[in-house]
Amino acid sequence: MSKNIKELIAKMTLEEKASLCSGLDFWHTKGIERLGVPSIMVSDGPHGLRKQAKDADHLGLNHSVPATCFPSAVGLASSWNRALIQKVGSALGKEAQAENVAVLLGPGANIKRSPLCGRNFEYFSEDPYLSAEMASSHIKGVQSEGVGTSLKHFAVNNQEHRRKAIDAIVDERTLREIYLASFEGAIKQAQPWTAMSSYNRVNGEYASENKTLLTDILKDEWGFEGFVISDWGAVSEFVDSLEAGLELEMPSSGGIGEQKIVNAILSGELLEERLDLAVERLLRIIFMAVDNKRENAIYDQGAHHQLAREVARESIVLLKNKGGILPLKKEGTIAVIGEFLKKPRYQGGGSSHVNPTKLESILEEIENTAGKNVNILYAQGYYLDNDDIDESLINEAKKAALQAETAVLFVGLPDRYESEGYDREHLRLPENHIRLIQAVGGVQSNLVVILSNGAPVEMPWVDQVKGLFEGYLGGQALGGAIADLLFGEVSPSGKLAETFPKKLSHNPSFLNFPGEGDKVEYREGIFVGYRYYDTKDIEPLFPFGYGLSYTEFEYSDLFISKKEINDTDTVTVSVNVKNAGKLVGKEIVQIYVKDVASSVIRPNKELRGFEKLELQPGEEKTVTFTLDKRAFAYYNADLKDWHVETGEFLILVGKSSKEIVLQETIHVHSIITLHKVVHRNTLMGDLLSDSILAPLAKELLAEANKYNPLAIMAEGEGEMAGMLKASMKYMPLRGLINFGQGAFTEEMLSELIQKLNEEAKQYV
Amino acid sequence: MSKNIKELIAKMTLEEKASLCSGLDFWHTKGIERLGVPSIMVSDGPHGLRKQAKDADHLGLNHSVPATCFPSAVGLASSWNRALIQKVGSALGKEAQAENVAVLLGPGANIKRSPLCGRNFEYFSEDPYLSAEMASSHIKGVQSEGVGTSLKHFAVNNQEHRRKAIDAIVDERTLREIYLASFEGAIKQAQPWTAMSSYNRVNGEYASENKTLLTDILKDEWGFEGFVISDWGAVSEFVDSLEAGLELEMPSSGGIGEQKIVNAILSGELLEERLDLAVERLLRIIFMAVDNKRENAIYDQGAHHQLAREVARESIVLLKNKGGILPLKKEGTIAVIGEFLKKPRYQGGGSSHVNPTKLESILEEIENTAGKNVNILYAQGYYLDNDDIDESLINEAKKAALQAETAVLFVGLPDRYESEGYDREHLRLPENHIRLIQAVGGVQSNLVVILSNGAPVEMPWVDQVKGLFEGYLGGQALGGAIADLLFGEVSPSGKLAETFPKKLSHNPSFLNFPGEGDKVEYREGIFVGYRYYDTKDIEPLFPFGYGLSYTEFEYSDLFISKKEINDTDTVTVSVNVKNAGKLVGKEIVQIYVKDVASSVIRPNKELRGFEKLELQPGEEKTVTFTLDKRAFAYYNADLKDWHVETGEFLILVGKSSKEIVLQETIHVHSIITLHKVVHRNTLMGDLLSDSILAPLAKELLAEANKYNPLAIMAEGEGEMAGMLKASMKYMPLRGLINFGQGAFTEEMLSELIQKLNEEAKQYV
Repeated sequence: MSKNIKELIAKMTLEEKASLCSGLDFWHTKGIERLGVPSIMVSDGPHGLRKQAKDADHLGLNHSVPATCFPSAVGLASSWNRALIQKVGSALGKEAQAENVAVLLGPGANIKRSPLCGRNFEYFSEDPYLSAEMASSHIKGVQSEGVGTSLKHFAVNNQEHRRKAIDAIVDERTLREIYLASFEGAIKQAQPWTAMSSYNRVNGEYASENKTLLTDILKDEWGFEGFVISDWGAVSEFVDSLEAGLELEMPSSGGIGEQKIVNAILSGELLEERLDLAVERLLRIIFMAVDNKRENAIYDQGAHHQLAREVARESIVLLKNKGGILPLKKEGTIAVIGEFLKKPRYQGGGSSHVNPTKLESILEEIENTAGKNVNILYAQGYYLDNDDIDESLINEAKKAALQAETAVLFVGLPDRYESEGYDREHLRLPENHIRLIQAVGGVQSNLVVILSNGAPVEMPWVDQVKGLFEGYLGGQALGGAIADLLFGEVSPSGKLAETFPKKLSHNPSFLNFPGEGDKVEYREGIFVGYRYYDTKDIEPLFPFGYGLSYTEFEYSDLFISKKEINDTDTVTVSVNVKNAGKLVGKEIVQIYVKDVASSVIRPNKELRGFEKLELQPGEEKTVTFTLDKRAFAYYNADLKDWHVETGEFLILVGKSSKEIVLQETIHVHSIITLHKVVHRNTLMGDLLSDSILAPLAKELLAEANKYNPLAIMAEGEGEMAGMLKASMKYMPLRGLINFGQGAFTEEMLSELIQKLNEEAKQYV
Repeated sequence: MSKNIKELIAKMTLEEKASLCSGLDFWHTKGIERLGVPSIMVSDGPHGLRKQAKDADHLGLNHSVPATCFPSAVGLASSWNRALIQKVGSALGKEAQAENVAVLLGPGANIKRSPLCGRNFEYFSEDPYLSAEMASSHIKGVQSEGVGTSLKHFAVNNQEHRRKAIDAIVDERTLREIYLASFEGAIKQAQPWTAMSSYNRVNGEYASENKTLLTDILKDEWGFEGFVISDWGAVSEFVDSLEAGLELEMPSSGGIGEQKIVNAILSGELLEERLDLAVERLLRIIFMAVDNKRENAIYDQGAHHQLAREVARESIVLLKNKGGILPLKKEGTIAVIGEFLKKPRYQGGGSSHVNPTKLESILEEIENTAGKNVNILYAQGYYLDNDDIDESLINEAKKAALQAETAVLFVGLPDRYESEGYDREHLRLPENHIRLIQAVGGVQSNLVVILSNGAPVEMPWVDQVKGLFEGYLGGQALGGAIADLLFGEVSPSGKLAETFPKKLSHNPSFLNFPGEGDKVEYREGIFVGYRYYDTKDIEPLFPFGYGLSYTEFEYSDLFISKKEINDTDTVTVSVNVKNAGKLVGKEIVQIYVKDVASSVIRPNKELRGFEKLELQPGEEKTVTFTLDKRAFAYYNADLKDWHVETGEFLILVGKSSKEIVLQETIHVHSIITLHKVVHRNTLMGDLLSDSILAPLAKELLAEANKYNPLAIMAEGEGEMAGMLKASMKYMPLRGLINFGQGAFTEEMLSELIQKLNEEAKQYV
């Protein structure tokens, strides 16, 4: 098969080239038989393959071939385990190979701006660094099997509400530091075969028609080598999209899209070279898919199910363990309550919905793991298909709880609460779940709650509960994983990849979500997630990075390789972590950086590194991180670059974003000097505190201020002198005229400014 | 004297006209002797006249003629007493007449965006309605004496930090609803003779060069008839300022400013008609001043001092009275502690600083009022001139407290903490004041604290205190007023005109104050003060509108005249208030309005009316309010007008913004129908829920969606149908093409859109 892509393109007709840029149907690219260009298949599924079973079904979202359903992205991210996510990716790749799928439509790297977003379960985190690391690992895993990925939804697609019309208004620094950074790391580290442009607008332009995003940043700046595929139906004007850097319209528009491209080229509106570049990118990936196709590939369903269980164990987060109620002992009577035990909520709704190869019953897995010495009493507690409180179910649950030493409640959000396609309107559990917790809590103080949900919920009942697991959407093997954790077969090791607020209203986007009409302003800026709660000092219910273990970890010997660096240098940070408990366990070590003082507004701290490590009881390991410029930088929209402000930074080692256990100070020097221009409205105080200009400014102003009575008085004594001193600091140079009584002229001012600007040239 | 201003202008030379637009010196306008145009004097002093004593002193800020120092604006506003503020204004006017001052440079109506602003004590409130009402009353009072006012600082001047360079970036709705509304009410109701343009920039342009603010809004829209005077030194380019609508540059620029005007007119850069209009406005006010001048006016210093005491009593707010510790009994031993007792902090620093006619000692007033049966022990507690903790003073204070039944601490912010010219950097009391509270609180549980400060402070010690007064800056008669309140000569009746946050970080502007470099973004938008704490559900230390009394008030019989109105109607709201206690007292009844549901983001509630009434024990009064369109409206930036969204509103009667005691629902119909245009990206859900378009849209979409498999599936059953139904709601019309498999063409789409737009014409 010819791989000389340029030669191949030269042989194509205009119509053939245009045809490649639009889908064949819902799930395939077009081929060109006469030139040996094949059609490849793409399929949904960031946490499990969702391949439509037959051609007859190709438009349906319902029926797909069985595939392993892993925990959804929120759970994967809570593991903070790069290697494990990569293994999941690899398993997904194997399944895709077995099903002749060339590109898996995931992972999603959108930031969790609001906990209400209906699709949050498909995204990793509120933190761009963690999100990018997780996405990279996922992509590396899938692509290691010769299957492509599609990093989605690029970009600033943070809500389902009016998702095809909404215009996200976001300032450039926020875009760079938060919303794009989550993609940037994944693109640069893992080079996904494709990237998917999102439905929404960004600052007025559809993401799918946004040249800044699709070409300037994604391709030119970040070096993305693959092609951009539209989210399904995201194309508005296809010619504008192609011009902006989108290569593939999906699904097929039945020939309409490609005809527009042909017409635009014939009319001169679009250059054929642009189309050629698009086709080149498409063919490169299409042939890569063909080259990597493994004929007759199969995968081991049992092994993948086992992997799903392993992953679920690490993705579940222990939030509370009062009095060491957990792990449960394998003896006595335990009441397990909630319909979720028989009908688990293990994945979210929408395009990521998988037809699992197997689905564990939580109840059965608990019975299996508990063994013969435990008497398990089951009660349904509520009906999943509605929110009505059923008192007879409640009473049954109370009765079971009374007969047991411990009650374990399985509550959370039913399917209809969370899905692609719409956002939640509040963070409450269903009324019947809340009532169940309160009722059972009223009769049984040994209460453990296990939540199944894709995003944070409010927990007004949390004080009634001794043990609390956030189970998220744990995939098809969640039952076994929960049993393992409940009875201490393994120690919990997940930590939250997002903040749980006490109230929805505390969320930083609350006043601006989901926006007004078709506009949503990201007024909270960079203060997303813990960056906000931390800086605003608003106590969260559970902070970012938080999660308990059955064992204890001790931190010591924080060491940084240099106390003073230039921003072009890197610094190595190491810390010792010891398992001081009696059980084997895994700990997630988090590195945050804080800028001690800054002329721009910065968050209190930001995650810049993490590592998950396993430790035997008594074992100690040294974990090492490397920090570079980006760890200290903010995005300077004037410079159009990342910038470090010279000064002190704290390097913080945390068990969570709130629990900082060790810290060190480092001094970072910027090698960039910002150019200064003096003008009539430059403040005197700025000149007098400028390292280069101060001596000359002092001399010139001393002379000029001879005419300024305010300046003279500011030098004196008396109750007003302090106020005047402050006033002089904020006095613009033209104040020499305002207060100069005619003796200081415009000409004198121009001369003074000119002298200072001569001096300022030293900066360059 | 000729009052035919146009004739007079016709007689003037270009140079004469230009000369009128710039000051004669620091405090006078220029006159034209040959034409009988007099020079008039302006002087600082929103809460007391600050007239410079002699010409030799004319530039000094220190020495001014003695004048009554009333409580500063923050205190005046805490009285919520329109009539009382008007009396203060009248007294100020009398003093200005006596001192030959034609225009008093105040009041200030800037909104308290951040509690850090160094000049907050000179401003009234965080709420524009309350601020405008207070400013109006002040202006009416001053001007009733034939003396002008200068409503300042127009506009968006909410910080001292870099005040002459800072650019306030604020969206139009916020500008209108918050920052301008505070001026708008005062301009429209009270027509101040002059308005003062501020130092800062607003959305890129200096306020003093901002035609939108100075001409379009202030004069054309609000009907301001006076002239605009620059804040001292606020003019950058005088020609631009005059062009924008500024009439008077202050202080004198020694001829430079007026020469620029002459040159600009001679060169054709500026039209002479513009100058003529400016001169006309100037002369109108100058002659008004002359006409209203009372020769040999005098005022009664004693009466004004008494008024200052009366006002101080109403401006002090009782924040805490645990176990009814207050009022104090006139018996036993009372320790009074703090240097403030001898050196009261009674006013703020800067241009508003008054040389008082008399200054009461708090200690002496307490001794006088307490009478012979009380043993008063004084201890200094701290040194005011520094923050160092002096343990011997602390021990002395503890000793006094131990000997007494009750300790009353006088703490707060020393002069250097708050002033025009710079902002605070934190909300803490000085270390030595905090230490004093803790130390005395450690030995004496009957603890009362009286604060002297111009803006909120954090109170980590508040739980140690039984009684708490916010005394603000109480003017020259604060001593007597405090004594009156402490011993129950009068019942406290002030309520907070601003929120006290638990922590500075909770303030809505915290993440964006004081900005970066020369730019400060008002990202919190309309959520200023209680609008934020209330909507975000962040518990304040003390809420807006809060204040205790020594008596009890009961509310009943809320009545609204109509349950359903058009937005062009008014509605009358009445409520009964009864004094159910045993002491005479005054209550501030507050009316808030809440929009139950809105397509735009609105605060949880907004103050729309208030009344202060005095009630004898057992007495009941009916208080009546009238609400018009503005009470229900938000500013719609697209319409460029105030707009009411049809629907339910709650009318809330509150003792404070947090304590709502009665409520009623009203339905308000908008008579404005917003025009709709259908386009390719109009969402199907919007059409199907539109009262006019829905029938046709339903018919057309049913036909068109025959080609759309997603729409067909959305109508079906199965786990995906719900998600698809939601998706269809957010599907743009062009989705008919995206998912139409080629069967639905661009031509068909255009036709469909055209039909809908034909139908939409019914709106107009």
